[in-house]
Amino acid sequence: MLANQIQADPARFRVLTGDRPTGPLHLGHLFGTLQNRVRLQDMGVELFVIVADYQVLTDRDVADRLRETVEGLVLDYLAVGIDPERATVFTHSAVPALNQLLLPFLSLVSVPELSRNPTVKDEIAHSRQSSVSGLMYTYPVHQAADILFCKGNLVPVGRDQLPHVEITRTVARRFNERYGPVFPEPEALLSAAPVLLGTDGQKMSKSRQNAISLGATADETARLLKGARTDADRHITYDPVNRPEVSSLVLLAALCSDRAPEEVAAEIGDGGAAALKRTVTEAVNEFLAPMRARRAAYGADLAYVRKIVQVGNERANAIADRTLAEVRAAMGMDY
Amino acid sequence: MLANQIQADPARFRVLTGDRPTGPLHLGHLFGTLQNRVRLQDMGVELFVIVADYQVLTDRDVADRLRETVEGLVLDYLAVGIDPERATVFTHSAVPALNQLLLPFLSLVSVPELSRNPTVKDEIAHSRQSSVSGLMYTYPVHQAADILFCKGNLVPVGRDQLPHVEITRTVARRFNERYGPVFPEPEALLSAAPVLLGTDGQKMSKSRQNAISLGATADETARLLKGARTDADRHITYDPVNRPEVSSLVLLAALCSDRAPEEVAAEIGDGGAAALKRTVTEAVNEFLAPMRARRAAYGADLAYVRKIVQVGNERANAIADRTLAEVRAAMGMDY
Repeated sequence: MLANQIQADPARFRVLTGDRPTGPLHLGHLFGTLQNRVRLQDMGVELFVIVADYQVLTDRDVADRLRETVEGLVLDYLAVGIDPERATVFTHSAVPALNQLLLPFLSLVSVPELSRNPTVKDEIAHSRQSSVSGLMYTYPVHQAADILFCKGNLVPVGRDQLPHVEITRTVARRFNERYGPVFPEPEALLSAAPVLLGTDGQKMSKSRQNAISLGATADETARLLKGARTDADRHITYDPVNRPEVSSLVLLAALCSDRAPEEVAAEIGDGGAAALKRTVTEAVNEFLAPMRARRAAYGADLAYVRKIVQVGNERANAIADRTLAEVRAAMGMDY
Repeated sequence: MLANQIQADPARFRVLTGDRPTGPLHLGHLFGTLQNRVRLQDMGVELFVIVADYQVLTDRDVADRLRETVEGLVLDYLAVGIDPERATVFTHSAVPALNQLLLPFLSLVSVPELSRNPTVKDEIAHSRQSSVSGLMYTYPVHQAADILFCKGNLVPVGRDQLPHVEITRTVARRFNERYGPVFPEPEALLSAAPVLLGTDGQKMSKSRQNAISLGATADETARLLKGARTDADRHITYDPVNRPEVSSLVLLAALCSDRAPEEVAAEIGDGGAAALKRTVTEAVNEFLAPMRARRAAYGADLAYVRKIVQVGNERANAIADRTLAEVRAAMGMDY
């Protein structure tokens, strides 16, 4: 089992993970991926966190207020416990040697392979653009560059991201076969993210205003949860299939208080939606309080936040330059 | 007229041109593009010559003996009169900030636009690969990066390359509209290249062994021309439509001796193919002699050749870094 191997020898693993700076991170990110990153970091795995600024442009024309969004993202990372002393946080656009890898990698992938990618197909279906851009189309190959530039060998993903990791493995394997061994074939670490719905019962999403962001105040959180969609049955149960909205609130309270959702539901019993909302609001605010305190403290020192990105970019550039030099040598391009 | 503008103020123009290092340059290149580059350089236009090593991989799996081929290419440049004091000769793979431009540029071009490109369609039809690679597919956008990284505003092309320049213009225009003015919209300088056939009557091509390379010896040249395909009519005329092979040899002799092809043909008259071949061999060898002498002299000092590439790469990197910094600032990615 991969999990056991990581436990046994965490220093053997290097993780590449990250986010597009499209808005503040929320509870869905926290329980879906951020907690997992911190857990890996604290186990001793080396963590690279990419702020994928170019990839904002895969499904929209212009990236708005990027500086602010990127700083917010880094504050979110610091808030949840990503430690810049151990982890490397960097921005995509700042690492030319990483981006250069897109070129040799594109030569290893065929157009039919790009067209077939199910995740790209899906993302294209949800794009805000009238036609698919070349950046969206080549996005899995660019992601291969993100992972392989630092020789990442472990990629925590949801099930829907598996095809991307598969392309990265293909790129690494073909490169090694053609030019000699340079890259690891990274393994996907499947994480079973809990299914949290937004307060409107839809998928929790930065763009739908239905998500509790990590940086929201306790009052904003209370207001958003107060308006959450529930149902008419006063008896609260945990039944995700038949009562998705109520169950998502129960699950959220359970995750925040480290209890089983059934236990939370039983405790509320016939208290109805009002009691449920009180319970979940209290649990969320209590759970997020220390993170929000850290976020506020770092937020008062944006120079420090920018410094973290600068240091991360320097580290990423040093590693990318080394990898690119190896790639040039392997390809006979070191004139 | 563009030509008049260049004549009037050559310093206003920066030319990007180059070659894929797939083999030695030949007479087709010399009369088709190299002479024109040297002419522009000598007029005072700033010249950038890219050795497009990554683009070797657009139509084949692996680039063989690259170092040797790149050195040969630079020797050819020096032989024909490209002056490394005034021109910048550099290799693609050595300039990460240039290559990074591919990412923002890909976001400005749609997949239907990429698929429609007639030159790519044609190159795909002649590819040695079983399926089209992502590198081939995105090649016009990469070429836009080649041209725009140095803010090239003049691109000497044949008619078949016009769609590429059009994509570059589109990329520059869209970037400027979206993010503010950074790039020029480069103009195509159409050159009327003479149609020289190979010695087998087919298109002259590095890969068909039917071309007289600049670096060939006088003996090799004589042998190749002796085996050239002609026709049965002993009376030599210049009639490209009805007598393509004979006329191509006449034209070659004319180009090398700076005469009209009709004059060359009339002089040979009834001498037949043997006289024609003697004439053309003499003209070619005499014409190439000084270039070959220069090529041999530089060839004896490969350290100097490598130094030229290194200096060119440094210059190209400095310019690319500056342009990328402007691009980052325009896109709001200067954190």
